[in-house]
Amino acid sequence: MYVIIVYDINVDRVNKVKSFLRTHLHWIQNSVFEGEVTRSEFEEIKDGLKGIINKDEDSVILYTMRSEKALKRKVLGVEKAPIGGIL
Amino acid sequence: MYVIIVYDINVDRVNKVKSFLRTHLHWIQNSVFEGEVTRSEFEEIKDGLKGIINKDEDSVILYTMRSEKALKRKVLGVEKAPIGGIL
Repeated sequence: MYVIIVYDINVDRVNKVKSFLRTHLHWIQNSVFEGEVTRSEFEEIKDGLKGIINKDEDSVILYTMRSEKALKRKVLGVEKAPIGGIL
Repeated sequence: MYVIIVYDINVDRVNKVKSFLRTHLHWIQNSVFEGEVTRSEFEEIKDGLKGIINKDEDSVILYTMRSEKALKRKVLGVEKAPIGGIL
């Protein structure tokens, strides 16, 4: 499955979220990560995030789709992290 | 077609981008909009954004998929803008 994660995290926790997600996904742009993951990896990511965020202050949206083929991506302006093969 | 737009825009222009996108899509979270659009609306959104951003500084990613059905959405923590019927 393919996942896009966007987040709005309190400044005290945002770096922790970012370094955690870097271990699983591609950093695309401020507060945006993407990547192909297995079902168990996705569960791991969700559990990891739950352990970091404050659920009353922070917000994380996890979009999933069957595969990257379901998705088209257009970039306007600067491409902060060209994801090469994934594009 | 269903579109998710994420952006990383210089502070001088970010409000202009936000108010422009509000006329077409749902605000979901900081720098994230979503919604169902026609092909011509999508072109209109792209052209409108190109007219606002500085292509050497700002970054906008437009993810499109055939329909919202191709997408699942999981929210952890605060849901900043429950999009009711669309969920």
